[in-house]
Amino acid sequence: MKVIFAINAGSSSLKVSVYSVEDRNATPREIANAQIGGLSSPNTSLTYTRGNEGIYKSHQVKAEGQDDAFSIILETLLGDEKLDEVESNSDIAIACHRIVHGGKYESAQIITKDTYNHIEALSDLAPLHNGAALGIVESCIRKLPDTTNIACFDTQFHMSLPPHVYTYPINQERARKNGLRKYGFHGLSYSFITRSVSKFLQRDVDQLNIIALHLGSGASACAIKGGKSWDTTMGLTPLSGLPGATRSGNVDPSLVFHYASDVGKLSPASTEKLHISKAEQILNKESGLSALTGTTDFAAIAGADRTRHPQHALAFDLFVDRVCAFIGSYYVSLEGKVDALVFAGGIGEKSASFRSAVVSNTGCLGFAISDAANDSISTEGSVTQDISSEDTRSKVLVCRTDEQIEMVYMCYRKDELWN
Amino acid sequence: MKVIFAINAGSSSLKVSVYSVEDRNATPREIANAQIGGLSSPNTSLTYTRGNEGIYKSHQVKAEGQDDAFSIILETLLGDEKLDEVESNSDIAIACHRIVHGGKYESAQIITKDTYNHIEALSDLAPLHNGAALGIVESCIRKLPDTTNIACFDTQFHMSLPPHVYTYPINQERARKNGLRKYGFHGLSYSFITRSVSKFLQRDVDQLNIIALHLGSGASACAIKGGKSWDTTMGLTPLSGLPGATRSGNVDPSLVFHYASDVGKLSPASTEKLHISKAEQILNKESGLSALTGTTDFAAIAGADRTRHPQHALAFDLFVDRVCAFIGSYYVSLEGKVDALVFAGGIGEKSASFRSAVVSNTGCLGFAISDAANDSISTEGSVTQDISSEDTRSKVLVCRTDEQIEMVYMCYRKDELWN
Repeated sequence: MKVIFAINAGSSSLKVSVYSVEDRNATPREIANAQIGGLSSPNTSLTYTRGNEGIYKSHQVKAEGQDDAFSIILETLLGDEKLDEVESNSDIAIACHRIVHGGKYESAQIITKDTYNHIEALSDLAPLHNGAALGIVESCIRKLPDTTNIACFDTQFHMSLPPHVYTYPINQERARKNGLRKYGFHGLSYSFITRSVSKFLQRDVDQLNIIALHLGSGASACAIKGGKSWDTTMGLTPLSGLPGATRSGNVDPSLVFHYASDVGKLSPASTEKLHISKAEQILNKESGLSALTGTTDFAAIAGADRTRHPQHALAFDLFVDRVCAFIGSYYVSLEGKVDALVFAGGIGEKSASFRSAVVSNTGCLGFAISDAANDSISTEGSVTQDISSEDTRSKVLVCRTDEQIEMVYMCYRKDELWN
Repeated sequence: MKVIFAINAGSSSLKVSVYSVEDRNATPREIANAQIGGLSSPNTSLTYTRGNEGIYKSHQVKAEGQDDAFSIILETLLGDEKLDEVESNSDIAIACHRIVHGGKYESAQIITKDTYNHIEALSDLAPLHNGAALGIVESCIRKLPDTTNIACFDTQFHMSLPPHVYTYPINQERARKNGLRKYGFHGLSYSFITRSVSKFLQRDVDQLNIIALHLGSGASACAIKGGKSWDTTMGLTPLSGLPGATRSGNVDPSLVFHYASDVGKLSPASTEKLHISKAEQILNKESGLSALTGTTDFAAIAGADRTRHPQHALAFDLFVDRVCAFIGSYYVSLEGKVDALVFAGGIGEKSASFRSAVVSNTGCLGFAISDAANDSISTEGSVTQDISSEDTRSKVLVCRTDEQIEMVYMCYRKDELWN
């Protein structure tokens, strides 16, 4: 038996899922889950669940940053007498870390000094995204000396993109030197979705063609051909493609130069691990659906009265339009051979009205849903649920994606951990 | 009878087409055509045709800039004794000017002091594009005091875009203040294509749904619904969407910040009418298919041996992929009701192998061509030619687009010019 931590550090949150696994052929069993939110706000709080039992819910805690938060979570787990599997630090065999940008790594990596340095260097490509996770890797190395750290990358699933898809038509010497290409993100989620849909449809992974939508506060789409990523909407960074809660998604690349009268004089705000320009901050953090509506709550946007909240209606229509555009593109790049259109992520799993609008607008490609099935999606039900109407060529599915457990499955594939 | 000049000033070229029209119901008759190219190079040359007769072909001339070039063309036309219709300056009733960025103008405008000032202010949105044309408007005002000047905008055809398409998900106050939205370009061409295809298919313009591709050194696509622009690939500026000969098209909006180590310290290179950043210059002038291949000649790219010239093959595949992606998007936004897929522009009209690749890759949407028809497209044939295979739901057409004559048709719609 091994205890595995799956750790996901966001810009203002830290989530640790604790799994107990008998061996690498067994289904991982989640034995606990601890999450600290609001790290950059005055309302920092801990939510802790053991098994199916909620222990703390939004319990106020004092944490200055990621390292503090990790200490609190570690103390909570070690101090919980009913969590038999985690009695001391040395019980934690593996800590997997979700790292957003993994450059050209094609698989999860055991973190050594070399890999750490390489991942740190990649942060130049993703200054907004890799910083927090690297901080927690450092915390683990210091606080859990007996634990093996594994880096699981959101990019690794997309290393199968063909050259004509990942290449940007820019100076190729510069592209090589600076690593400028499409990488794609949300790969842990797409990997989980591919496995789950393959199982659900009883179709071999290498025969599976799907259009997958991971729509949360960050949103992307992926064309999966023969079980592998063939195209995806995010690019060099998670900014491109679909709009998100605070991200613009694709805009005219010239837009930033017209955004503010002083953008021409951009100077990078530099801190040790953060050197982003003001414009990058604006497009990543101050744009997206919240810039249109004032809220990051998609349920409020989708549920608003269209007449009384025209901006909410505009945001909804705009998001549907951008998502449907990529579905059309990917339908073509999969040559019309699409086993399923799959909705996942917070919006994809929860918003029946959004799913309904998207499927209705892509009906000409052969998608159709049963309203009854669409309206009765349950967060308690199976991981993959079918909402297709009976006579469709391609299925329409909802998949409750799980990036945490996917990291454990990535560990299963590393022989070194199990010999 | 009126003589109308249609003037198209590019960054290094000036083209003047001379039309004689009996009245606004008659088909314009092109009586002469003069063009000066290589304005920013040591090889400045004049090509002049009267009727169907070539008079000068790449004849070396000395012109320092657009104003010089216009003087040479004017002298050539006035000095040609066989061009009876143009004997003195006062014979030229109307000069239409192609203006790339027209902001929110929905129709061609007679240039008064007010409209001139407004168009000049719009140059902030298109510093790379509007400058040359405005220079020629000034030359005409000075040199042809009796001539009425008309501004024809590449944006005006796209003023029908719906709000959820033209809106960028960014701060809306800033968007309103700085005019940040999708405008779209190549509108003179799409207007011509719409009219021509409507006539060819004998279908009323307001019933016509097409996906039109204007693929030249600048490339874009347009979804035309009921004869009006519903979506298009270019945006705030002509940079976004498809790659061009030297333009990147859509890239991750963050890319520019990672392009060069010194881009973070961008400073605008300012001249009187040009204040663009280095990054905008890179993405507009130093990227695109030429950055991949070293050539702007698409025939050389398409015709290259794939093994010996892998970069040419990559550029070809990449361009096909990006074009097909938008065809898929627009097929969806037109709800699958597509009367025709229309190829136009230098590449669209001339490259049979490109058309063949695009139609083959979008076959799942119901497009198919006759190879024989595709291979025998003639620049001498009808304006619109059908290359569909017999059993297709939607036609595939090639349209020899003509932005110059479209400007004359725009004048036909201005009552003030004909009363």
